[in-house]
Amino acid sequence: MAVSSAPGKVYLFGEHAVVYGEPAVPCAIERRATVEVSARSDGRLRVDAGDLTLDGFTVEYGGDGAPDVDVPQSLVQAATGYVDGAVAQARDAADAPDVGFDVAIESAIPLGAGLGSSAAVAVAGIDAATRELGVELSTEELAERAYRVEREVQSGEASRADTFCSAMGGAVRVEGDDCRQLDAPNLPFVIGYDGGAGDTGELVASVRALREEYDFAADTVEAVGDLVRRGERALDEGDIAELGRLMDVNHGLLSALGVSSRSLDAMVWAAREAGARGAKLTGAGGGGCIVALDESEASRTALGYTPGCVESFRAELDFEGVRREDG
Amino acid sequence: MAVSSAPGKVYLFGEHAVVYGEPAVPCAIERRATVEVSARSDGRLRVDAGDLTLDGFTVEYGGDGAPDVDVPQSLVQAATGYVDGAVAQARDAADAPDVGFDVAIESAIPLGAGLGSSAAVAVAGIDAATRELGVELSTEELAERAYRVEREVQSGEASRADTFCSAMGGAVRVEGDDCRQLDAPNLPFVIGYDGGAGDTGELVASVRALREEYDFAADTVEAVGDLVRRGERALDEGDIAELGRLMDVNHGLLSALGVSSRSLDAMVWAAREAGARGAKLTGAGGGGCIVALDESEASRTALGYTPGCVESFRAELDFEGVRREDG
Repeated sequence: MAVSSAPGKVYLFGEHAVVYGEPAVPCAIERRATVEVSARSDGRLRVDAGDLTLDGFTVEYGGDGAPDVDVPQSLVQAATGYVDGAVAQARDAADAPDVGFDVAIESAIPLGAGLGSSAAVAVAGIDAATRELGVELSTEELAERAYRVEREVQSGEASRADTFCSAMGGAVRVEGDDCRQLDAPNLPFVIGYDGGAGDTGELVASVRALREEYDFAADTVEAVGDLVRRGERALDEGDIAELGRLMDVNHGLLSALGVSSRSLDAMVWAAREAGARGAKLTGAGGGGCIVALDESEASRTALGYTPGCVESFRAELDFEGVRREDG
Repeated sequence: MAVSSAPGKVYLFGEHAVVYGEPAVPCAIERRATVEVSARSDGRLRVDAGDLTLDGFTVEYGGDGAPDVDVPQSLVQAATGYVDGAVAQARDAADAPDVGFDVAIESAIPLGAGLGSSAAVAVAGIDAATRELGVELSTEELAERAYRVEREVQSGEASRADTFCSAMGGAVRVEGDDCRQLDAPNLPFVIGYDGGAGDTGELVASVRALREEYDFAADTVEAVGDLVRRGERALDEGDIAELGRLMDVNHGLLSALGVSSRSLDAMVWAAREAGARGAKLTGAGGGGCIVALDESEASRTALGYTPGCVESFRAELDFEGVRREDG
């Protein structure tokens, strides 16, 4: 048996603009997905995702048929697509195409909230499954293989950001296929979640359409890129106040690109008015999560009273990426 | 006795960016200030502003002393500074330096809400007072003289936009000192007011500081200018849907410049979710009003249920500027 965990992430800066070659800065957060893997001799795959969602489910399936499960297909896919992919990567890395696994997933990262839960499951799953087969992959290779899983499940639309960030931990910089770690101070993230999620594909397409239609929207995307470069400097200098100011502006630019929502704006203002250094939506937008920078408990408290916010929690920057949990 | 009225205004596009030489498009709205003027022989000025604010007050004063009034000085200034200035302009235009007036002001434009109530009072006041003295000014000269009043009261910080728009009516284009009227379709404005007002001077200064500190903020200001140019085309084509889309983006760019607020965002989303073609803050921001484009009653109804919105009303584009009300 092998157990690994990997963190979720927020975007400190740069989502959406990263699609057009601008840099982005995702940051790992202290909320993890944990995957426990045991090899089994019959070649079958059993996935227990009891703590992955509110409803919890267990699926057992092999190469020969549909899973024996009666839950919404989207949920099954969410959990099992990434596990399937992680298992395939582990079989490939260990040159053991026929090995089966019992897989148990627990995640403290809200599913489908744009916090990188799927990347964390893929990273932790590959790490645990390869170690169970006696193979140790470098973190870089883990990130690469987890990226392939996301790309496959998401039909070619994945970014390297989530998987690289989850594997490496800390603050990272992504620009096209170039990913690297950044020096960063401790970042006191507070996250607010509206319980929903925008449709990432639709949101990316709507920004693309806006950008093609209007030069000023293309300029807005470039402004995000310039902001990210300033943000890297502020990170390097450990300037939390400046990071907060830049987050506020980044949120406005994302609003201009049409990807904010009523609940996201309400949460962003709740955090700011509670004294956060800054706040912005994180991820694709249209719903989902905001991230605020706040050393105090005030933002989290304020979010607890904000209509539209169903969950809020503190999750500081996690300097650790994928982690062995089996001692 | 002479009675004139003049409309308030909203910014369809371009506030703040106009300070840096970009074009802006203010639009007159069907909410008016009405000023009634009668000459009096004793050289004194009596101002009755009973319907100007919730509290209403009357002030009587001459050149020889302080007004006989016990209300907050800011309110007195708001009402009487512009009336004083209008009277001075009328005395100058009619070459009658010693004439006194009874002035009664009624305004359906919320005071201090960024809807151009002071410009409307100045325009209507000059028109009524000059006509009372037997002088007919051209609309352009009225606009020019009203601008001088605003500039004086606001210590040199006035824009020509409000007074030109109020005098001429309709949609106008302002770029630096160049003001002209635009062809426009009927615009079904709905206005939401949060009962507050940002500090215009502070907000302008904060945008200036942001723009000087960050290249991407300067680019954001330029993006607003490009958006306004697209908006002029949409106005010319009578494309309401496009105007709405551009208003949404303009609001986001203003948010990026840091001049939106929690209540402004809440009102903007209420209108959008009720089906408005688009919605944005109007004016300096930081509080005050939003303007939405909506042919239906839905936005106004939704605003009525929006926490933070204290007043909402329909006020379509007013094609008429300053108007004689004494038959």
